[in-house]
Amino acid sequence: MLEVDCPCVTPEVVLKASGHVDKFTDLMVKDEKTGTCYRADHLVKDFCNEKLQNDNTMTADKAAELRHVLAVLDDLSAEELGARIKEYGITAPETKSPLSYPYPFNLMFQTSIGPSGLIPGYMRPETAQGIFVNFKDLYYYNGSKLPFAAAQIGQAFRNEGYLLSRNAHIKSDNDFLKVQISPRQGLLRVREFTLAEIEHFVDPEDKSHPKYSEVADLEFLMFPREEQTSGQSARTIQLGEAVSTGIVNNETLAYFIGRVYLFLTRLGIDKDRLRFRQHLANEMAHYAADCWDAEIECSYGWIECVGIADRSAYDLRAHSEKSGVDLVAHEKFSEPREVEKLVIATVKKELGLAFRGNQKTVVEALEAMDEKEALEMKATLESKGEAEFYVCTLGKNVTIKKNMVTISKEKKKEHQRVFTPSVIEPSFGIGRIIYCLFEHCFYTRPSKAGDEQLNVFAFPPLVAPIKCSVFPLIQDKKYDAVAKLISKSLTVAGISHKIDISGATIGKRYARTDELGIPFAITVDSTSSVTIRERDSKDQIRVNVEEVVSVVKDVTDGQSSWADAKGRFPAHSSVSADA
Amino acid sequence: MLEVDCPCVTPEVVLKASGHVDKFTDLMVKDEKTGTCYRADHLVKDFCNEKLQNDNTMTADKAAELRHVLAVLDDLSAEELGARIKEYGITAPETKSPLSYPYPFNLMFQTSIGPSGLIPGYMRPETAQGIFVNFKDLYYYNGSKLPFAAAQIGQAFRNEGYLLSRNAHIKSDNDFLKVQISPRQGLLRVREFTLAEIEHFVDPEDKSHPKYSEVADLEFLMFPREEQTSGQSARTIQLGEAVSTGIVNNETLAYFIGRVYLFLTRLGIDKDRLRFRQHLANEMAHYAADCWDAEIECSYGWIECVGIADRSAYDLRAHSEKSGVDLVAHEKFSEPREVEKLVIATVKKELGLAFRGNQKTVVEALEAMDEKEALEMKATLESKGEAEFYVCTLGKNVTIKKNMVTISKEKKKEHQRVFTPSVIEPSFGIGRIIYCLFEHCFYTRPSKAGDEQLNVFAFPPLVAPIKCSVFPLIQDKKYDAVAKLISKSLTVAGISHKIDISGATIGKRYARTDELGIPFAITVDSTSSVTIRERDSKDQIRVNVEEVVSVVKDVTDGQSSWADAKGRFPAHSSVSADA
Repeated sequence: MLEVDCPCVTPEVVLKASGHVDKFTDLMVKDEKTGTCYRADHLVKDFCNEKLQNDNTMTADKAAELRHVLAVLDDLSAEELGARIKEYGITAPETKSPLSYPYPFNLMFQTSIGPSGLIPGYMRPETAQGIFVNFKDLYYYNGSKLPFAAAQIGQAFRNEGYLLSRNAHIKSDNDFLKVQISPRQGLLRVREFTLAEIEHFVDPEDKSHPKYSEVADLEFLMFPREEQTSGQSARTIQLGEAVSTGIVNNETLAYFIGRVYLFLTRLGIDKDRLRFRQHLANEMAHYAADCWDAEIECSYGWIECVGIADRSAYDLRAHSEKSGVDLVAHEKFSEPREVEKLVIATVKKELGLAFRGNQKTVVEALEAMDEKEALEMKATLESKGEAEFYVCTLGKNVTIKKNMVTISKEKKKEHQRVFTPSVIEPSFGIGRIIYCLFEHCFYTRPSKAGDEQLNVFAFPPLVAPIKCSVFPLIQDKKYDAVAKLISKSLTVAGISHKIDISGATIGKRYARTDELGIPFAITVDSTSSVTIRERDSKDQIRVNVEEVVSVVKDVTDGQSSWADAKGRFPAHSSVSADA
Repeated sequence: MLEVDCPCVTPEVVLKASGHVDKFTDLMVKDEKTGTCYRADHLVKDFCNEKLQNDNTMTADKAAELRHVLAVLDDLSAEELGARIKEYGITAPETKSPLSYPYPFNLMFQTSIGPSGLIPGYMRPETAQGIFVNFKDLYYYNGSKLPFAAAQIGQAFRNEGYLLSRNAHIKSDNDFLKVQISPRQGLLRVREFTLAEIEHFVDPEDKSHPKYSEVADLEFLMFPREEQTSGQSARTIQLGEAVSTGIVNNETLAYFIGRVYLFLTRLGIDKDRLRFRQHLANEMAHYAADCWDAEIECSYGWIECVGIADRSAYDLRAHSEKSGVDLVAHEKFSEPREVEKLVIATVKKELGLAFRGNQKTVVEALEAMDEKEALEMKATLESKGEAEFYVCTLGKNVTIKKNMVTISKEKKKEHQRVFTPSVIEPSFGIGRIIYCLFEHCFYTRPSKAGDEQLNVFAFPPLVAPIKCSVFPLIQDKKYDAVAKLISKSLTVAGISHKIDISGATIGKRYARTDELGIPFAITVDSTSSVTIRERDSKDQIRVNVEEVVSVVKDVTDGQSSWADAKGRFPAHSSVSADA
C-alpha cells in the first residue's frame, strides 16, 4: 500500500470537481433575533420525537405523519423542511424566537491562497481527494498495475459543532455556546479530526480479492438494507455468505469489511456493540455501488466510525473531466484482440449544405449515437433513403439523407483496454473509534474494603499507551535500584512504562495504574525476583529479575499471551495487595 | 514531556494576543499591470546582488551603499523599501512593469468559524500558541511543578511559496506560477509544513538543567553574534565553555542546543555542514533572552532547520493579559518567609479636596511609585511637609502634602512566590531537516564496469525507511522459499523490508536497493546460510538462516553495529556481485 501526505489547503477547482463546493452543505435556520444558527433537520427531528413520546392526545394519523417525516428527513428539500417548520410552529430552542427560512451552509472552511486574494481555496473536508488527483503518479509508482491502494492519515476540517479547546481564551461555557451549532454529539462532531482513508483501485470488471478467503469465514453483526426497511434487527451473518447471496456487492468490498471488523475488535471494541450497517438507497450517493458503515454502540447510540464504500469510477471520472487529465488504467493484452467497432463517418459537405449554421451540432449528435441507434438509422437509410433524427441540443427532429452519413462496423485490432478504475474506500474516523474504545474499555469494580468504586480501563496490551508500571513494594534503596534497572531495560526494549517510587501504598499505586489502563505492573519485593500483576484478573506471577522484561515484551507484543505466561511461571499467591 | 494535539483552526483572539494578527506580515509589491505579487525585500536583494556582481562601473561609494542595504534589509520599513525600489528603478521581474508601493501582507490563511460568518479565525502559523493557551491545564497535569515541557507535532500554515502538488488540476508550470510568490526556495518554503515544537517552561530565576552535564562536553560549529558582526567565521566551541563564557545565555538553552546537535547528527546530518548561529540583536524579538538557529548547509546555502529560543515570559504574559486568565506558576515555600513590603496608603479625602476631578489619576500615580521614588517622597514629606510629584498621565507636577499619603515598609509573611514561567522553545522544521538529510546522504559511485554512475542514499539504519532487502541469488524455487521465510520472520520482528524475486541480475538488484537507501541486503544463495551485504562498504558476511533476522534486528535497532557483526561472522569473499 502506498502512503501519501497531501496538503490540507486545497484549491477550489479540486473541490468543485469532487462536488464539495456545490453539494457539501447542511440546511441551516437562524434565530431571527439572536442570529444563532441551527441545523433545520435537527429541529424537525427533535420536534417529532418529542411529540411522539409525550403527546398522548395525538391522533393515529398525526403520529403516522410524524414517523414518516422522521423516516424521510434526510431527503427533504429546503422548501419541504421550511414548510414543516412553519406548519409545526417550531421556534428557536433557546429564545423561542421565529426562525429564518432554511438555507444551505457549506461545511468547508473557506480561505484565499496567495497574496493576490484571487485564488479561492478550502480546508479539505476529507483526505480522499488528494489521492484521486494524484492517481496518475500513484499508478505509475505501482508499476502501472492494478489493483493497488493508497492510504492517507491526516486532518480533515468541517465547519460545524464544537471547537474542543479549553484554552485560556475560552472563559466560560457561554463562549463555547457562541461557536456551537449543536452540542448533541460532544466529542463525536468536531471541526477538525483525524481521518485515515484507503483508496483501493480495482478493475471494475474484476472485483475479486486475493486475500478474500482470509476473511470469508468471519461472522459478525450485519444490518442489510432489507432488514432495516422491514423493521428487523441486525443479525449475525457469515461474510462469505453475505457475498454469495448478493448482500455485499463484491469480494473486495467484503475483504475490507472483514479487515475493519478484525481491526476494531483487536483494538478492544466489543464485538457485541459493533455492527455493519448497509446504506439505504436514499443515503447512498447515486454513483456508489454499495456502502457499509461500521457502527459502534456507545452512550450516544450507534455511531458511524468507519465507512466502507464502493464509489465506482465516479471520483476519477469527475477529476478527469474537470482537469482534462486522463485518470485511467491500461490493461495490455498478451496478444492483440480483434474487435468489431462501430464507425460513423459523416459527410460534412452535405450536412453543411443541409443545415448551415447547425452543421456542427448535427455532426456531434450523429457521432454520439450508440450502437443500437446507429444500426437502426443505417437500416432506415438503406430502406427509405432518409431518416428522422432527434437532435437534443437543437430540441427538434432533422431529416438525415443517405448521402450525409456512412454507418458501418469494422474489425480493428486492439492492443489494450483503457478504463477508469473503480475505487473501494474504507474511511476511518480515528477520534470516534478512540472515543468508543474508551467507553467499551471502561469499567468500575469495588475496592477491597468495598467502600469505593475503582476505575479501570481494560485497554488490550497492544493499544495501551503505557504497557507496564514498575513499583518497589516498599520504600527501600535496594528495591528502588532494582526498579530503576528494570525501567532502564524496558526503555532499551522500547516498552513504554511508568515508574512510581512514591510512598503511596501498593494498593493505591495499583488503583492508579488500573485507571490509566496499564495492563501489567511489576512489583519489586526482592532483589532476585519480582511479581507481574495483570490488570483485569489481578493475578500475579513470580519471575526472575533477568527475565521480567522479555516476559512483558512477549505479552505486550502479542508474541505470547498472559495465559502462556501463567503457565510458564509460578503464581504469586500472597494475599492480594489491591486497594 | 507532555504531548498535546491542538486545533489548526484558531480563533482570531488567540493570534491577536500572540501578535500574529498585527505583525506576522511580509512587505509585498504588486506588478501594476498583471497583479503578480513579489516580496519587496527579495526584489531589492536581487537588485543589489546583481549590481555588486556584474556592474564594474559602479563607484566604491555606491557599492558600499548597496552592501549596507543588504545588511539592514530585514530592518527596512515599507517607506524605506519603497524609496529604494523607486530610487533604483526596480520593476517587475517578468513584465518590467512598474511596481506598487510596498504593503503588508499577513502570512496567515484567514477563514471564518461557524455558520454565522461572524467569528474570524486563522490556520495556525505555528503550533506553539496551542501549548501556551493550554498552559494552565498542562501545569496541572504536571502536578503543578516546574520545570516541565509540552510538545506538539503537527501542520502549520503560511500563505506563501509553492503549493507543492503535482495533481491532476495543475496542468502546467504556468498554473504553478499563478500560485507562487517566489520559487527561489523550492521545497524549503511551502504553504503547509510539519512543525515539531517543544515548549519547556522554567522558573526564570533558575534556568539550570539536571541533564546539562550530559551535553556540556560536546564540541561543534557555533557562530556567535560577535563573530558574525565582526566578519569572522563559525568556529568549533565546546558547549560548556559557551555557557561559562556567557555566549549561550543559560544551561537549559544550552541543553536543548546540545540535544538538537545529537538529534541531527544521529539522523545522518553531516556535522561539518551543521552550525548553530546566534540571532543578531535586530533579528531577535525584543522579549527574547537569546536565540540560536541550527543551520544546515545544502545546495540552497545555510538553511535554518531548527530554532532554539529563550522567549522569556512573553507568550504566557500576552495570553494572560488578553484572556484575563492567569497563566502563572507557584513556588510554595517550605516555611513562610518574612518579606518587607512597601505600603503606599493614600488619603482619598484630602486628595479629592486638593485635586477634584484629577483625584483618581493622582492616586494611581502615587500607588505606581517604585520603592526608590516612594522612599524619596517619604523623606521629603518628613523634612519639608510637602513634595513636588510629576504625574505623567496629567503631564504636570502636583504638590503632595504630608496628610495626603502615608508611605511605610511593613513586614509580611509570604507562603509562596507567584510568577510567570519563562519558556525555552526548540522548534523543528521537519520537512527542511528531511530535505537536508536527502542531500547529505546522497552520493554516486561508478558501476563495476565504470560506464555508469550509481546513486546511493547513505541513510543510517536508524532512519532508513526500509531496513533490509531480501533476494534469492538466482531464480530457484528452493531459494524463493527461503527468501519468503526470512521475509515472514522480518515482518514478525517488525523490520520493514523489501523482497525482490524478480529475475534481474543481483548487481541490478543491489543498485536498486542502494538507490532506496536500504542499509542491508540479504542474499539467499543456499538453503542453510545466506549473505548480508552492507550498502556503503559493500562488505558481505555469511550468517545461518536461523540467525539472520536477529543480526539484522540488532544492527538496525542500534543494539550493535555492522563492525560488531563483521567481527562475529565470517566474511563472504566471493567476487563482488555489484553492478
